Amino acid sequence: MAGVFHTTLALRTALRYLSPSCTLTSAATARLLPPGSRKLLLPASSVQSGVCSRRLHAGAGGPTPSPAAAPDRLPFSKVTQEDLDFFKKVLPGRTITDPDLLEANNVDWLKSVRGYSEVLLRPQTTEEVSQILRYCNSRNLAVNPQGGNTGLVGGSVPVYDEIILSTALMNNILTFDGVSGILTCQAGCILENLSNYLEERDYIMPLDLGAKGSCQIGGNVATNAGGLRLLRYGSLRGTVLGLEVVLADGQVLDCLATLRKDNTGYDLKQLFIGSEGTLGVITAVSILCPRKPKSVNVVFLGCETFEQLLQTFKLCRGMLGEILSAFEFLDSECMRLLNTHLKLPNPITDCPFYVVIETAGSNPTHDEEKLHNFLEEAMTSSLVTDGTVATEDTKIKALWSMRERVTESLTHDGFTYKYDISLPVERIYQLVTDMREHLGDRAKSVVGYGHVGDGNLHLNITSPAKDPALLAAIEPFVYEWTAGCQGSISAEHGLGLKKRNYIYYSKPSQAVALMGNIKAMLDPKGILNPYKTLPDNLR
Amino acid sequence: MAGVFHTTLALRTALRYLSPSCTLTSAATARLLPPGSRKLLLPASSVQSGVCSRRLHAGAGGPTPSPAAAPDRLPFSKVTQEDLDFFKKVLPGRTITDPDLLEANNVDWLKSVRGYSEVLLRPQTTEEVSQILRYCNSRNLAVNPQGGNTGLVGGSVPVYDEIILSTALMNNILTFDGVSGILTCQAGCILENLSNYLEERDYIMPLDLGAKGSCQIGGNVATNAGGLRLLRYGSLRGTVLGLEVVLADGQVLDCLATLRKDNTGYDLKQLFIGSEGTLGVITAVSILCPRKPKSVNVVFLGCETFEQLLQTFKLCRGMLGEILSAFEFLDSECMRLLNTHLKLPNPITDCPFYVVIETAGSNPTHDEEKLHNFLEEAMTSSLVTDGTVATEDTKIKALWSMRERVTESLTHDGFTYKYDISLPVERIYQLVTDMREHLGDRAKSVVGYGHVGDGNLHLNITSPAKDPALLAAIEPFVYEWTAGCQGSISAEHGLGLKKRNYIYYSKPSQAVALMGNIKAMLDPKGILNPYKTLPDNLR
Repeated sequence: MAGVFHTTLALRTALRYLSPSCTLTSAATARLLPPGSRKLLLPASSVQSGVCSRRLHAGAGGPTPSPAAAPDRLPFSKVTQEDLDFFKKVLPGRTITDPDLLEANNVDWLKSVRGYSEVLLRPQTTEEVSQILRYCNSRNLAVNPQGGNTGLVGGSVPVYDEIILSTALMNNILTFDGVSGILTCQAGCILENLSNYLEERDYIMPLDLGAKGSCQIGGNVATNAGGLRLLRYGSLRGTVLGLEVVLADGQVLDCLATLRKDNTGYDLKQLFIGSEGTLGVITAVSILCPRKPKSVNVVFLGCETFEQLLQTFKLCRGMLGEILSAFEFLDSECMRLLNTHLKLPNPITDCPFYVVIETAGSNPTHDEEKLHNFLEEAMTSSLVTDGTVATEDTKIKALWSMRERVTESLTHDGFTYKYDISLPVERIYQLVTDMREHLGDRAKSVVGYGHVGDGNLHLNITSPAKDPALLAAIEPFVYEWTAGCQGSISAEHGLGLKKRNYIYYSKPSQAVALMGNIKAMLDPKGILNPYKTLPDNLR
Repeated sequence: MAGVFHTTLALRTALRYLSPSCTLTSAATARLLPPGSRKLLLPASSVQSGVCSRRLHAGAGGPTPSPAAAPDRLPFSKVTQEDLDFFKKVLPGRTITDPDLLEANNVDWLKSVRGYSEVLLRPQTTEEVSQILRYCNSRNLAVNPQGGNTGLVGGSVPVYDEIILSTALMNNILTFDGVSGILTCQAGCILENLSNYLEERDYIMPLDLGAKGSCQIGGNVATNAGGLRLLRYGSLRGTVLGLEVVLADGQVLDCLATLRKDNTGYDLKQLFIGSEGTLGVITAVSILCPRKPKSVNVVFLGCETFEQLLQTFKLCRGMLGEILSAFEFLDSECMRLLNTHLKLPNPITDCPFYVVIETAGSNPTHDEEKLHNFLEEAMTSSLVTDGTVATEDTKIKALWSMRERVTESLTHDGFTYKYDISLPVERIYQLVTDMREHLGDRAKSVVGYGHVGDGNLHLNITSPAKDPALLAAIEPFVYEWTAGCQGSISAEHGLGLKKRNYIYYSKPSQAVALMGNIKAMLDPKGILNPYKTLPDNLR
């Protein structure tokens, strides 16, 4: 009883900062220490020192490699001196062959997949991309399109010696219309740079994710990135208005419309959203951006049970309505990793579950009143046991980092097996509980976090080192469990190299066959990002 | 001055009803007479008496038919007695061959296109659709998939003797999840029935359109219908979560997921959204539905100039923010037609332009306060000259009908040439002005209305009867004008039969060629809705 009293008091203290009579600037965060940077990426040195295997999860000398393992190299041509001469002519000074300079492009952020490409091309224009692909297609040279290389499924790095085609230098904003909020830019623009550009103009990007400081908009679109704002602004399938794409044969497909509505024929751009660079190279994007909210609030709450967390979500959707912009969660295991590895202190008392709620609206007084009413109700009905509120930008960032830096904390905990699952929202934590029970003490940590509002669980399992026996215990258990709930084995990360052969857990064979037909139609030689997205048995 | 004073007073009267101290139930509409039903469709008798030509806009004996005219019949098989025997076995009592019963299915709502199909099939299950298509494909019989037959571009009726495959009897709701708001239903469910079903469960459909009483969700998805709520809830490309589709060869493609996020491979369902039944027959839909707003308000305003209307839109987006759910407009010519043909009186004083603004939110007090502040500012800055406000359901419907029934009023004005154009929002009315000047007294009426928030203009031109000379003055002028602004010649109506050959005004030839490849891949014999969507020169 004393505990409940104490935490209730703590939340009441926090609530005082949200009183409608209190202005935004005078509001502050209660009980929160500054938790440092939001940046997700490891320093380049740690990437460069990583020792990785291109053969993922392969059984330790066992006869059957994991379905995540790379298949044999396909019979693409190998890069010759003549090829290099051509590339250097098209991209003088931007055709990189120095192995040291290539290192960071050959390995993924998780250091879980390593290719051995010997050529990195850095075009600046669509025409250059077109020339390169036309040439590679005619020479049967495989190409790995690469954005910010922040993907988590081994989709953004070469598997063998594919030529790396980086969009990093294609980073110009082309147009922005301050009336409609439509932004047009090259594919290599970094998400955070676009966000900053827009915020100065009273708009925001419709997507936000932890990797924003490195990921590129072209890669975001190619992987149909979800992230933290999807609950409010919807997926890229709705917000992306147009794309310019270079096809495998070098043809430029100009679908870079800047119109909110266009029903003239089939919506071809949709083919490229989420196809992970296997159907074409996205070179420019037009995207509809929402107005910058005049008022943003973030709440960090603790719940005793996941059922209470779901009840909090329902209450919140009803009471916050149109100003709810995010409802994220992490469990106590995530909090332990944040404390241990990143020295981020828990801003509230220890609880089994934590929630990050963000509101974004046009009237600070109305928003604070809605939030106040919701928190009072959540507290009165004992759905939440403790909480803290932030209305100032730095404090908001600090609270967000508790959610955004979980991925980073996991990299310090050991080798991480990552799963990105869509499930009916009532079931999302059951998978974590069942997995813990199933694995017993074979795993170091089994943690769950993610996007409650989207029914999207990030399930992560760590071990001191790569552990084929542990992997065999996790898979196919996790996929069968997900398929049993008609879930998706990749909610937002895509399939890349690692998950490609698990596609049948979420898609019927007719659908996968049709995907194969689409690939064959658009890239008959299969040069674009081979070994990714589609299962081996299509080839 | 006196006039301004008067209209300002009128709006002040209206504003009183919106005062934050006034509860919703006591609020009412000022200065508005009941304008009758919202229903868009003509009675069946008027459809049946229509005499139409299947050759659209063909020059009066001239040597060059309009690009909208039907091409020659393609060499499909003709229906034999043996075929009918097969259909009757699969669909006993639901294989219709009585010409009288077929009449309404052979002609479109505008009575502008007439086919002469002799067979109407009314399956109830996906398996039946599959059997029919497998058979038709093997027999090379052309098929016209038909939903509510409310399309405006001749896409929903046969051009020659195509078999009509109606989804009207596939009208079961399959599941509804009250936590996630995800509805799954058969394709033939009528939009208004779904809306009613959801409203009882505290949800709404994410789309709404004038034809709601007749149009079917399968047809809505097949045409990527936009409508009145797109500004708020986005397009069907974001809200449709899953589709079940029967392909031309009878194969059932099950992509009927009920997950908000799923990045396992290419998003095949997008191919069928907006493809107007040319790539497959949609048999079931899953769709994400928003919560029913606790508070809805509608405002009808008058503006002196279109520039003031745009300024009102900008102000409104800033001040109403997240509760703005629609911003529609009509011009004084539309009002004249509503008055003349439907006897709907103008609810405010005569103005050159009228605006319908809808708000939808979770807190009636907050919404009314936001609306009040916006209206006061719009009035003070003289952006609007008169207005009226509705907060009660019947009054809201009455105000909405001023916008929704414009299409109906046009059918009484004469033969209507309809254009559905996407443009940068600043340009949308310039096209109406330019067209009026261009046509002079050759047209009976030239009217503009539509979705300002989406940059979508409905430009309609009437004449006492079909008039090839008038048409020659309108086209290609309207398309060239649109292409000159990088607009779309079909924002939401699709291309169907009438607009198929104009696709190049909005899409580059590479894109159209790729659409042709997709069609050939999915429907190699071209049996599905032939003569629609894709231009003749692909064949």
